[in-house]
Amino acid sequence: MLTIYSDDYFMQKAIQEAQIAYEEGEVPVGAVIVSNKTVIAKAHNQVEKLGDVTAHAEIMAITAAANHLGSKFLTDCTLYVTLEPCPMCAGALKWARLSRVVYGASDDKGGFMIYGKDMLHKTTKLEYGVCHDKCGQLLKDFFKARR
Amino acid sequence: MLTIYSDDYFMQKAIQEAQIAYEEGEVPVGAVIVSNKTVIAKAHNQVEKLGDVTAHAEIMAITAAANHLGSKFLTDCTLYVTLEPCPMCAGALKWARLSRVVYGASDDKGGFMIYGKDMLHKTTKLEYGVCHDKCGQLLKDFFKARR
Repeated sequence: MLTIYSDDYFMQKAIQEAQIAYEEGEVPVGAVIVSNKTVIAKAHNQVEKLGDVTAHAEIMAITAAANHLGSKFLTDCTLYVTLEPCPMCAGALKWARLSRVVYGASDDKGGFMIYGKDMLHKTTKLEYGVCHDKCGQLLKDFFKARR
Repeated sequence: MLTIYSDDYFMQKAIQEAQIAYEEGEVPVGAVIVSNKTVIAKAHNQVEKLGDVTAHAEIMAITAAANHLGSKFLTDCTLYVTLEPCPMCAGALKWARLSRVVYGASDDKGGFMIYGKDMLHKTTKLEYGVCHDKCGQLLKDFFKARR
């Protein structure tokens, strides 16, 4: 059962975004930003479509959420992302001062955690492993189909 | 004397961008990207204007250069930036695989070098200290006027 407003519930929304990326031939990563139990931004990886390495789901979600709120700081927001953010995205999350970051699958090679949790803002809570298998399976399927 | 096509020459172009940021009330950081001795992208910090923490000079220059070249990889490009990039921007520079990154002033608190040069791509050459004093003075003046 999927309880509304749970971490699993919002991660499902991020997975839906990742699915869109998958269908567009992008590395399937999706993100949503939630404020006051409402999704205020959603985005998926568009690096290939836009030909722009900065077009990660998290960066685009941060920009959209900031536009929505009229504030560069996202202090009352939680970001859900299907894959452990890369250092670029972790740096952006630090600047945006999110209250929480929740990621699904780990990225032992490219993820920011090789530099430690301190890459995020000191006020940002971190959780991971939410819908881990489902998030990871989409990535596995994608890279398997590419080989 | 300022030799054309030298690092000093292109850093001056980045300083001109930083000057625009200064006049707009933004933290004065500017960047240019050079390919084949030609400036193909220039940008300055627009975080306040756009209300978006990701609107750093480097990120915007990368996006502009990629659009210009029609390639997400900037393998034959040099980025000149007046201040040591933050981890977010260093992560973006890694993805974009620039051939060289040259920065002016150091940022001991917020710069990516606290994590080491490995934040950049292994093929990216790094230089710093070009026009160091001029780059740093603009920042000092900015923060002095704000106090």
